[in-house]
Amino acid sequence: MLFEWNGSVLPQLLPRLSILFIYSLLVVYFREDLLSYNIYINPAIFTLFGIALAIFLGFRNTVSYDRFWEGRKLWGALLNDTRSLARQAHTLVEGSDYNKERTHFISLLTALVHALKHQLRQTEADGDLKRLLLNSEDDKFRPMVFKPIMILKDLGVWVNKAKLSGRIDSITQAAFDANLNKISDIIGGCERIASTPIPYTYSILLHRTVYIYCFLLPFGFVESTVWVTPFVIVFIAYTFVALEAIADELEDPFGTQPNDLALEAMSEMIENTLAEIDNKTIVAIPPPKSYYII
Amino acid sequence: MLFEWNGSVLPQLLPRLSILFIYSLLVVYFREDLLSYNIYINPAIFTLFGIALAIFLGFRNTVSYDRFWEGRKLWGALLNDTRSLARQAHTLVEGSDYNKERTHFISLLTALVHALKHQLRQTEADGDLKRLLLNSEDDKFRPMVFKPIMILKDLGVWVNKAKLSGRIDSITQAAFDANLNKISDIIGGCERIASTPIPYTYSILLHRTVYIYCFLLPFGFVESTVWVTPFVIVFIAYTFVALEAIADELEDPFGTQPNDLALEAMSEMIENTLAEIDNKTIVAIPPPKSYYII
Amino acid sequence: MLFEWNGSVLPQLLPRLSILFIYSLLVVYFREDLLSYNIYINPAIFTLFGIALAIFLGFRNTVSYDRFWEGRKLWGALLNDTRSLARQAHTLVEGSDYNKERTHFISLLTALVHALKHQLRQTEADGDLKRLLLNSEDDKFRPMVFKPIMILKDLGVWVNKAKLSGRIDSITQAAFDANLNKISDIIGGCERIASTPIPYTYSILLHRTVYIYCFLLPFGFVESTVWVTPFVIVFIAYTFVALEAIADELEDPFGTQPNDLALEAMSEMIENTLAEIDNKTIVAIPPPKSYYII
Amino acid sequence: MLFEWNGSVLPQLLPRLSILFIYSLLVVYFREDLLSYNIYINPAIFTLFGIALAIFLGFRNTVSYDRFWEGRKLWGALLNDTRSLARQAHTLVEGSDYNKERTHFISLLTALVHALKHQLRQTEADGDLKRLLLNSEDDKFRPMVFKPIMILKDLGVWVNKAKLSGRIDSITQAAFDANLNKISDIIGGCERIASTPIPYTYSILLHRTVYIYCFLLPFGFVESTVWVTPFVIVFIAYTFVALEAIADELEDPFGTQPNDLALEAMSEMIENTLAEIDNKTIVAIPPPKSYYII
Amino acid sequence: MLFEWNGSVLPQLLPRLSILFIYSLLVVYFREDLLSYNIYINPAIFTLFGIALAIFLGFRNTVSYDRFWEGRKLWGALLNDTRSLARQAHTLVEGSDYNKERTHFISLLTALVHALKHQLRQTEADGDLKRLLLNSEDDKFRPMVFKPIMILKDLGVWVNKAKLSGRIDSITQAAFDANLNKISDIIGGCERIASTPIPYTYSILLHRTVYIYCFLLPFGFVESTVWVTPFVIVFIAYTFVALEAIADELEDPFGTQPNDLALEAMSEMIENTLAEIDNKTIVAIPPPKSYYII
Repeated sequence: MLFEWNGSVLPQLLPRLSILFIYSLLVVYFREDLLSYNIYINPAIFTLFGIALAIFLGFRNTVSYDRFWEGRKLWGALLNDTRSLARQAHTLVEGSDYNKERTHFISLLTALVHALKHQLRQTEADGDLKRLLLNSEDDKFRPMVFKPIMILKDLGVWVNKAKLSGRIDSITQAAFDANLNKISDIIGGCERIASTPIPYTYSILLHRTVYIYCFLLPFGFVESTVWVTPFVIVFIAYTFVALEAIADELEDPFGTQPNDLALEAMSEMIENTLAEIDNKTIVAIPPPKSYYII
Repeated sequence: MLFEWNGSVLPQLLPRLSILFIYSLLVVYFREDLLSYNIYINPAIFTLFGIALAIFLGFRNTVSYDRFWEGRKLWGALLNDTRSLARQAHTLVEGSDYNKERTHFISLLTALVHALKHQLRQTEADGDLKRLLLNSEDDKFRPMVFKPIMILKDLGVWVNKAKLSGRIDSITQAAFDANLNKISDIIGGCERIASTPIPYTYSILLHRTVYIYCFLLPFGFVESTVWVTPFVIVFIAYTFVALEAIADELEDPFGTQPNDLALEAMSEMIENTLAEIDNKTIVAIPPPKSYYII
Repeated sequence: MLFEWNGSVLPQLLPRLSILFIYSLLVVYFREDLLSYNIYINPAIFTLFGIALAIFLGFRNTVSYDRFWEGRKLWGALLNDTRSLARQAHTLVEGSDYNKERTHFISLLTALVHALKHQLRQTEADGDLKRLLLNSEDDKFRPMVFKPIMILKDLGVWVNKAKLSGRIDSITQAAFDANLNKISDIIGGCERIASTPIPYTYSILLHRTVYIYCFLLPFGFVESTVWVTPFVIVFIAYTFVALEAIADELEDPFGTQPNDLALEAMSEMIENTLAEIDNKTIVAIPPPKSYYII
Repeated sequence: MLFEWNGSVLPQLLPRLSILFIYSLLVVYFREDLLSYNIYINPAIFTLFGIALAIFLGFRNTVSYDRFWEGRKLWGALLNDTRSLARQAHTLVEGSDYNKERTHFISLLTALVHALKHQLRQTEADGDLKRLLLNSEDDKFRPMVFKPIMILKDLGVWVNKAKLSGRIDSITQAAFDANLNKISDIIGGCERIASTPIPYTYSILLHRTVYIYCFLLPFGFVESTVWVTPFVIVFIAYTFVALEAIADELEDPFGTQPNDLALEAMSEMIENTLAEIDNKTIVAIPPPKSYYII
Repeated sequence: MLFEWNGSVLPQLLPRLSILFIYSLLVVYFREDLLSYNIYINPAIFTLFGIALAIFLGFRNTVSYDRFWEGRKLWGALLNDTRSLARQAHTLVEGSDYNKERTHFISLLTALVHALKHQLRQTEADGDLKRLLLNSEDDKFRPMVFKPIMILKDLGVWVNKAKLSGRIDSITQAAFDANLNKISDIIGGCERIASTPIPYTYSILLHRTVYIYCFLLPFGFVESTVWVTPFVIVFIAYTFVALEAIADELEDPFGTQPNDLALEAMSEMIENTLAEIDNKTIVAIPPPKSYYII
């Protein structure tokens, strides 16, 4: 596992690491001239840098991962709440003659999930909406800007119709409504992560600190470590810039990079489990590890 | 990206860093006199300082970012809950003849959002309130001190009117009321962050430690690193004071500095999405990245 | 800002720092004798201490600040929930002839806030209760031990009276009751922080480690840094003991030290905003920064 | 305060620290032989250990304190929710002729608190149950395994009786039931902490690392620090093993060690405040600091 | 305790540590040749590595433990909510003639718990379902993919039947439904942890950094520490790789490794306590420590 190529951040870092390697070689080669001009850095200085570097890298890493994990939790909550709503449609609304309406309710739920996926990835929702909704609904939703929220409103309209037809009372309507509120929170939560990156100044500062640090390193160790210097420095640099690169990918968990959330697979899984609650027979989906594409 | 000028904290730090640079040059120039008077600091001492410095900087940074992110979450929750209330007004209150009242309810919601923005930035709410509310309401709210809370009360009055007119029962009123409670929590949460800074003593201590630390640094490295000293020291100092400067901006997330929250853009976005729920046709707003002005 | 005297922890630390300074001077003066007896400490040892010191100081600091901030959040929630209850009294209870009762309800809320302030600071609540309540109530509450909780019970009695008089039904009563539960949580949360300090052993250990560390420092640096030693050591010691001193103040956020929460100002602010909801005209309070006395 | 004996972990550590002291003395005495055999460790190696040590100790300490504080929060929530239930019994249930039943309800609540205390400490609940409950109830609960949960069920039965007798409707019953759910969460939360220690492997690893580290230390510093070595090393070791010892005490916050939670005092305090809500006159309990026995 | 063999990660690490030991011995043996070729690393370089290593290891450790503890909390919440539902079935549903139905409800709850255990461990649920459910139900659930969710739906059907038979009204049905929602959240929370590992790139990077670091170590210390080197390096390596190994076990808390959660014991405990609420006599289960198999 030590040398495999699947980590996916190494390839994109290779050019920069190669430049650093060649640069270090040059410093080693001209070391005598540099030292004769007193161009030398006390190694203790690098441990002082270390304080700022550790705070920056640790902070960036933690915050990025928290965003990734919060995004995952929101989609987990989306699964839970759509399941709850589907269960409510089947166990709180009276009438065995109402199954077609229930199926429509579940189609709206599924459409909401796919619409949210498309909004977060800024892709076209048309295909999924056409597949899942009535034609009239599809026409209605197409020009809308906040599609998932508008579908949520239609779910509320559905619940109100059930009440007007006497199948539920206002107490049960409130129980549905509480879950609709939760879905509103989930949609807004996803929008918040997608629209608010980590303050840009952090990225710049971290970037600058990491690279200047790496390019100063040879001047501190060329005297004692000589020809081993380039190898060791490139390895140190690799750990720092790779950490920065992963954090950069995780920061926007709804993107399509290798370490981002598998929204596509998760949407399908939600569609599947809602269909099962709606008494459809479904086939076992592949083991859960695959939700999260490695 | 390494040398661009957009990070916005570098310009304000340049004067201090320049003074430190000149000061370091002087120490290097007079190094022989200093050493003859035994004015020298063992470099190991600076790593001991590092402990306190790391705790201070790490703490300040984490707390400031948490305040920024909590402020963002509160405005995200404001989006979610105003959307939920708008949906409730459209799906829980009976009567197709009631649309004018519903639009009024949504105007009150929008006015609340803008009023909160103005309260947090200590700007005048008059323009936005005049634009959104009836004349009589505008006159009523103008002299009030806690405008968002008083608008919230009027939302409660609206709900009670709907109940008195028989369009909702007390169960549905309670469902509205639960969301009004959440808005009360959001308003108070924003006020809490705006009114309670990080204890002042922390800022002083951190400030003192960072600057005294930087001005002691040359005495530790002048002997070994000589003329490279000023360059390296200014770079170390830059990472520390820049970190302090960002933390200072983020500490009050409702301000108008470059890294603060884009309350203006977020208010407009909420106004937009509420209008869409109220069956208005809206145009797509620019991609979400712009909520957060870099 | 670098040398101002407002930080309030420096004065109380001056005596100890002076002793350390004189002690360090003595070590420098007798350095030759000490070294001749081999009384010397390898500086590397101090970085090993650093691990324990960083864990202790970082932990103490984080936990103390978390207690401070949790205390602030609880008082923020008290603001939010009393506002919500005042809004409920005005928008959920029927009858324009009931305004006197509503004002009484809000007086009880205000009395509860002041009573909690007095309980947390172990001061006399009599003045505030007399000012806000009816004479009969004042007599009733005076001998009670848990005054805020008993006032909360009377708020519940008020709600029940409204129900018995037919102005609210049991659904609306439940909506009031949910907010009364939250106030119960807030009161208990404040009591928890006030009654449970950080385990005492931590304070002792941290105290011991910091002071023994500082008094060992001169033996490590006297040989290399000589007469600069006392100045540098006192500065290092200052950062450590000041951090400990702030943490000590924040640990009990309901006290009356300079960095503690401004319970007095916050109680007045709550009284003000509740009065405005009760249709009183209030004057703008000074800008929010003053809630928190620096 | 620096040398007092109340910290309670020092005595139990003295034997180990004494062994370390004697061992260090031996290393110093035989230092010339050791060095002649090249048995020497570069001090820089100990800072590398420091990384693992800091992660282990910091992690152990944080997790243990979090368990302690979560335990405290759960008991704080128990106070809040039992108070809320007592208030509900007095303000939501109709009838001045029902006070005897209300007192019985509050006895059940008090018994639940004591039963939980006994379950967590694995002591006999009989005395407290006999004191607080009717004989028939006492007989019923004695053979039961999960006593607090079974008393909770009886609280639910009490509420249902009030409903069957027409004193509350099902809405008010639901308000009671929501608080009973919270008590169920608290009981289960305490059981979770009591039954799931920190994974054992962590303790072993930390233990091994700390002790081997301390016993290697003399080999790194004997050459430079000579006879001061044993004193300094024992002090370093003391900070590490004391930190481990506190963490060990806090890990199980429901035990009876000096730093554990004062369940006994907290149960009495809850009994007291519930009695006051039940219109009993109580005497002021000693200042809150004593809940938590130092 | 220092040398016992129960920690369970040491055996699996022995081969790698042995290779490192032999490798270090070779470096020591050929040290003169290596130094004559200038193959030497300045020890200060290893403290620079330390920054990245500390961030990686600390992050991995914290995240893995958080996953373990969140898994434990979810199963704790499962205990609490199934108990609450069992209590509700006994105290909110009218009729002493309904006990058989109540027992069936509790069987469904117990089956849900076991089904979740089997889903998370990807084992066969058939045995447990056959033991707990009616034959017809067993046939129905066998082909289903998301068994716990489908059993949850049947719990909702049970509640609806109680309503249709007039034993509860829709308010009480909503109180049941709120707890069913919580169970839906728990099931989805477990699925989230099981299906989303820590981003794979982290594991690779950490793995690479730790091992390359360990294999570079001898070149830094062979000159000063000579024959003691292999022993010290293997001990340092042990702390790092053991930390990584524990984190790896805890990452998937629902597995069957020695440090994973004891789902089997916890399911039995839930079955036991639900049976007691259902008026069965149960025998005391062994002391709680055993839930968590060491």
